[in-house]
Amino acid sequence: MTAPEDLAERVREGDLRLHELEDHADYDTAAEARRILVERETGTELEAIGDYAFPAEQADPNIENMIGAAQVPMGVVGPVSVSGGAADGEHYLPLATTEGALLASVNRGLGVIRSAGGADARVTKNGMTRAPVFRVTGVAEAAETVEWVESNFEVLREAAESTTSHGELLDIEPYVVGDSVFLRFAYDTKDAMGMNMATIATGEACEIVEAETPASLVALSGNLCSDKKPAAINAVEGRGRSVTADVVVPGDLLEERLHTTADAIVEANTRKNLIGSAKAGSLGFNAHAANVVGAAFLATGQDEAQVVEAANTITTMDAREREDGTTDLYASVSLASLEVGTVGGGTKLPTQSEALEILDLRGGGDPAGSNADALAEIIAVGALAGELSLLAALASRHLASAHEDLGR
Amino acid sequence: MTAPEDLAERVREGDLRLHELEDHADYDTAAEARRILVERETGTELEAIGDYAFPAEQADPNIENMIGAAQVPMGVVGPVSVSGGAADGEHYLPLATTEGALLASVNRGLGVIRSAGGADARVTKNGMTRAPVFRVTGVAEAAETVEWVESNFEVLREAAESTTSHGELLDIEPYVVGDSVFLRFAYDTKDAMGMNMATIATGEACEIVEAETPASLVALSGNLCSDKKPAAINAVEGRGRSVTADVVVPGDLLEERLHTTADAIVEANTRKNLIGSAKAGSLGFNAHAANVVGAAFLATGQDEAQVVEAANTITTMDAREREDGTTDLYASVSLASLEVGTVGGGTKLPTQSEALEILDLRGGGDPAGSNADALAEIIAVGALAGELSLLAALASRHLASAHEDLGR
Amino acid sequence: MTAPEDLAERVREGDLRLHELEDHADYDTAAEARRILVERETGTELEAIGDYAFPAEQADPNIENMIGAAQVPMGVVGPVSVSGGAADGEHYLPLATTEGALLASVNRGLGVIRSAGGADARVTKNGMTRAPVFRVTGVAEAAETVEWVESNFEVLREAAESTTSHGELLDIEPYVVGDSVFLRFAYDTKDAMGMNMATIATGEACEIVEAETPASLVALSGNLCSDKKPAAINAVEGRGRSVTADVVVPGDLLEERLHTTADAIVEANTRKNLIGSAKAGSLGFNAHAANVVGAAFLATGQDEAQVVEAANTITTMDAREREDGTTDLYASVSLASLEVGTVGGGTKLPTQSEALEILDLRGGGDPAGSNADALAEIIAVGALAGELSLLAALASRHLASAHEDLGR
Amino acid sequence: MTAPEDLAERVREGDLRLHELEDHADYDTAAEARRILVERETGTELEAIGDYAFPAEQADPNIENMIGAAQVPMGVVGPVSVSGGAADGEHYLPLATTEGALLASVNRGLGVIRSAGGADARVTKNGMTRAPVFRVTGVAEAAETVEWVESNFEVLREAAESTTSHGELLDIEPYVVGDSVFLRFAYDTKDAMGMNMATIATGEACEIVEAETPASLVALSGNLCSDKKPAAINAVEGRGRSVTADVVVPGDLLEERLHTTADAIVEANTRKNLIGSAKAGSLGFNAHAANVVGAAFLATGQDEAQVVEAANTITTMDAREREDGTTDLYASVSLASLEVGTVGGGTKLPTQSEALEILDLRGGGDPAGSNADALAEIIAVGALAGELSLLAALASRHLASAHEDLGR
Repeated sequence: MTAPEDLAERVREGDLRLHELEDHADYDTAAEARRILVERETGTELEAIGDYAFPAEQADPNIENMIGAAQVPMGVVGPVSVSGGAADGEHYLPLATTEGALLASVNRGLGVIRSAGGADARVTKNGMTRAPVFRVTGVAEAAETVEWVESNFEVLREAAESTTSHGELLDIEPYVVGDSVFLRFAYDTKDAMGMNMATIATGEACEIVEAETPASLVALSGNLCSDKKPAAINAVEGRGRSVTADVVVPGDLLEERLHTTADAIVEANTRKNLIGSAKAGSLGFNAHAANVVGAAFLATGQDEAQVVEAANTITTMDAREREDGTTDLYASVSLASLEVGTVGGGTKLPTQSEALEILDLRGGGDPAGSNADALAEIIAVGALAGELSLLAALASRHLASAHEDLGR
Repeated sequence: MTAPEDLAERVREGDLRLHELEDHADYDTAAEARRILVERETGTELEAIGDYAFPAEQADPNIENMIGAAQVPMGVVGPVSVSGGAADGEHYLPLATTEGALLASVNRGLGVIRSAGGADARVTKNGMTRAPVFRVTGVAEAAETVEWVESNFEVLREAAESTTSHGELLDIEPYVVGDSVFLRFAYDTKDAMGMNMATIATGEACEIVEAETPASLVALSGNLCSDKKPAAINAVEGRGRSVTADVVVPGDLLEERLHTTADAIVEANTRKNLIGSAKAGSLGFNAHAANVVGAAFLATGQDEAQVVEAANTITTMDAREREDGTTDLYASVSLASLEVGTVGGGTKLPTQSEALEILDLRGGGDPAGSNADALAEIIAVGALAGELSLLAALASRHLASAHEDLGR
Repeated sequence: MTAPEDLAERVREGDLRLHELEDHADYDTAAEARRILVERETGTELEAIGDYAFPAEQADPNIENMIGAAQVPMGVVGPVSVSGGAADGEHYLPLATTEGALLASVNRGLGVIRSAGGADARVTKNGMTRAPVFRVTGVAEAAETVEWVESNFEVLREAAESTTSHGELLDIEPYVVGDSVFLRFAYDTKDAMGMNMATIATGEACEIVEAETPASLVALSGNLCSDKKPAAINAVEGRGRSVTADVVVPGDLLEERLHTTADAIVEANTRKNLIGSAKAGSLGFNAHAANVVGAAFLATGQDEAQVVEAANTITTMDAREREDGTTDLYASVSLASLEVGTVGGGTKLPTQSEALEILDLRGGGDPAGSNADALAEIIAVGALAGELSLLAALASRHLASAHEDLGR
Repeated sequence: MTAPEDLAERVREGDLRLHELEDHADYDTAAEARRILVERETGTELEAIGDYAFPAEQADPNIENMIGAAQVPMGVVGPVSVSGGAADGEHYLPLATTEGALLASVNRGLGVIRSAGGADARVTKNGMTRAPVFRVTGVAEAAETVEWVESNFEVLREAAESTTSHGELLDIEPYVVGDSVFLRFAYDTKDAMGMNMATIATGEACEIVEAETPASLVALSGNLCSDKKPAAINAVEGRGRSVTADVVVPGDLLEERLHTTADAIVEANTRKNLIGSAKAGSLGFNAHAANVVGAAFLATGQDEAQVVEAANTITTMDAREREDGTTDLYASVSLASLEVGTVGGGTKLPTQSEALEILDLRGGGDPAGSNADALAEIIAVGALAGELSLLAALASRHLASAHEDLGR
């Protein structure tokens, strides 16, 4: 066995390359060697980064050139009280973030939701997409290609599904732009977030398209998917789960707990989230849904960069008058494109896996897909709580002073 | 001193609330008590979450209801070779992610960039924004308010800057929609990402606007900022740093190292990143910039949810013919709204702080703002490497098979 | 019979209202009376407006409070040489506009297209949409409503189609946002543009939705249609006809006739129409497609305000090298949402009807829909010619000087 | 003098080209010759098209290859009652359209506005833009170019303004994307819509940029202008006039005249114009502003294709409770980018000129720009009336039946 210092030295001397260390030592030693090298070359000490709490080998599917781990503070909020299509009852929700006041804010909202009897939630659409782009000579061939694809959905479905034990091909939507043909494949990927499953399955189907039509594949992803980009196609048509959570909060609760009224919250939501976002040319009509989703993603091992799509969220607030003259608040969030999974990706890592355990949603659900549905619904209720709390704070003009009080 | 088990029991019995534990024990004990409570109520073991590598008290400005930490694998790529406005030379770039193949891909791109002599990078615009929304009775008052604001910039600047030792108010841009007036304040926040600084400073200025005009503040953030939402205003006008990185890669390097040609990469970029994104109604004309930015944000303690704005990235690829008949590739990424800081927020946490040390960018720069500029430039080069590598892979039709080979 | 002067006087005295004149005189006299009134009240002479060339009664379905007509100069361009799915051969295209140089520019492009052997064109998608919005109590009812609609498409189709002899309901796409449910109905409206047909048919279907589900109709149009607004849903999914036209122009033709090269045009298109539009947050990636469509709409009696959707056009230009070393240009336009008809609306008016006659496309086609398809294809070729000509001019840096020379 | 039949024959024989006829005959004869040719080649009679009411020569700056005119029915609505920054008092508004029920609807809204004491209106921003795109070698040169431009505004202003007697250069905003630099020039073009003025002035300034910086002009318009495309940059920052009109309608008026309530209209507006447009990925948060603007543009000689930008309109509706318990409606429209002029373009044509006379806004205003401002304000009030009327109709569920009753 080689000492990590020696390995580091060999890399420094050009004898080994940085990513080849795992070929010459166990994973933890390789990571240590890399730290030593970086420490020497940059004059730093990577003590905290090296103080990770899992066998490096376990992270092998998730990282290359590992030196250790980023440690992000994790807390819990809740319980989240939800009556969903898949989720039910009360659940602590783990959130990892570095943004002070976030958990306090979400927690405040969740308390109000709980007192209001809990939130409803539903996944209203489900489909992970991958959209290859093909080259044709022109629109005549494009029309021919599209026609073939539309007439041969079953052939393509069989090919795509031959690559996966769980995934189901739901739809192929063609788009023509000049001599480019895009085919947007949508899959039910069950409890997996499903990007890789969709990519591999689509790759298989593409071979048939190329064999049977004049089209030549240019890129397996043609950005009509659209992954990790702020795209209207996701905001309109959805990607992953489209999920809505809502709650009716009685007027007296608003007053006692949030020190505001339904009308004041509605005004803040309308001027900020609807009109302000409209004027900003935005696809996100919300206050800070991405904050809650991002923190939940980080805690539960989701793909952090997919916070981009999660931000395609519309928050609505409506004052509902009762017969007794009091006014309740209807509050909702609708996340058009929330991409989550309870298997695969980062979900198997130790802290992430434990976080899913807290939610009782680790691994595949029964029926398949129900765990990911439930996770989507619970995150949506978390986002709802965040919106409720922040809008109430804005309406009460507390935002700046809250940050000042907390010294941030 | 109370044992954590007893504290947990007191919370369970309703004697204490979950967020009050820090009032009755030191921070680590409070976190332990919370873990015990959650473990009992959910039947889990939170061993890994509890195995964090920093004093809980240190995370107090960043989290509430702490139970421990999320641990995300971190690796390094590079060195990043950059000639920037603020960054210079070669730097290892730490990235934290759970997406396998990401670092390998970025690293491949960085190697090519290095062989090509390094990338150029420039921050072309800088301004952290906060845009309160005011209520007026109608457009007559709106016009009056805007006129007052435009005539009294200095008064508002003084008020805003009185709250901060570093920040400078650069601009106030007014927008009128019916009886709502939005004022978009833009600040140079130096080495801080600056959201809180901008919020507090703007709050101070708003008091004057309310005193001197008919306008009443409805919300300190009116979504024309626009924070953590996919908004055209950020993609067009920028938020935080607007930064571009570019490189010219000789044709022979493309062939040897990326097994493709300038023309093939240009075609993939045009059909996917330009035409595909156009057809998708996207603000992000890139392949996966958010992946690289998200991983760099996580490693260096940035606000994860601001990956949303970072995705407003345009990638361009152009074939440049030489006189000798060979064809080079000009490659660039332009991130319109990259919000980064080297002080404040999550940057002080141990692993994050060490990651910034690797880059030699921890804390304030000299001159002020230069560290954040350099961080922006280095991340941009990382994103450039990611684009170059993925587009080359797509062009070579390697995407699906790469994932298959890695067993993901 | 009453003299128009007397009628005008009665309106002035408040004895009659402006829109009631047709109840007391024939249509031309009523229009004259209105002119007299307006002339007296504003001190003007409306000679030209009153000098219209059709019986006022004929315009009754198109206007209220008629005083005469706007006269807009009309010219012809072409012939348009097209090989389409519905259109074929050569056609003069009438265009009405007040923008000098437009027809000259389009004509130049059409000449080049003709010399290149004509353009291909195809309608790749067809569906006129109307999307009512319903109120429900929350997402639980929303999910229930959507489920009912998806299970009862046939019932809704029958209801919708019972109101029309030609229209066919193709699809109903549901969208949920909080307590609002949107149903996007799409119809094949054959040779009619079809907005009214779609509105009436959808109204009938809505009655059933209201009877069978908890949903209450709030507005027959909920803006997911989306009519006369710049909306991504139209740019992505199409509305009316999605149509592409393209042509390959030999390099020598480019040089002789447009004084430029494929590479120069590709560069102008990439930097302006692709990258510039990307940076502008645009849904229109073209140079001036709206100009050509607007002028063709005005000439042929289309709905002028639907130029808005027509602007959702992507122009692509690609250099194609030949084996002999010369470089041809592939040029295309893809109009995502071109709403045209050859029956109904303004198509029956005299000048508009004659303009359709020039194209041999007046009235219903055989098979039904083929005339509107052909009109869409011919207009698309016109737009292609406009793009080709303007991009060539820009590439040649002639734009400003052209306008100067023409003294405009 | 040659007979038109002979000229037509010469074109048919290839002896003359279609656009050369004005070289061999007076303008009306040339148009007649063209009609004869088209009639013969297409077997049509162009009687109505040939029956235009102005000397063909007068249309020479506006059309090429003239054959006659399109005649579009024109009516009047109003009076429009407005208290604006430039417009004041009551004005009949001429509208030309082929869409039945439009004028009736707008007229109904205007009546309500008049009864409510008239509308307020203000131009809140003014600037016609033109944004050339330049090529540089990379971001290093881009930064250098931008710096030069920012330091030399006065030099560029002088150059730009040397080409125009009226226009004033207000601002140059730089945008960098890779190796493309866009400079967005904004002008006060006074009473002219100003596109050509802005183009010519910018062309002059570009020559200096090219001489003094490394940048080379690729296209005088780089689509960040953005002309006749649905672009967020216009919706956010404005183009031409940004104008708002608003009114408070007492509750009893709503009931008597529109058969609805403030709350019902607010609900329709929120679900349709705000939430529906949000979900559609729209830049237009209105019901049908483009209809009114399009009809006013056609009547008054504006550029029809610029209806595209006019559709960037946000409609807001708010219920305002009075102390006596009744509820009024605050209604507003904010058109971000309304491009209008009272000189140049199509404004000199006979019917268009008369239409401007009806408004007392023909030609240049005093002070310069005030006529175009007033026109913008009056059109905005017209659009407000259209929104009010249509939303009331939708709220009352009258839309479909209205069209049925009118037999359309």
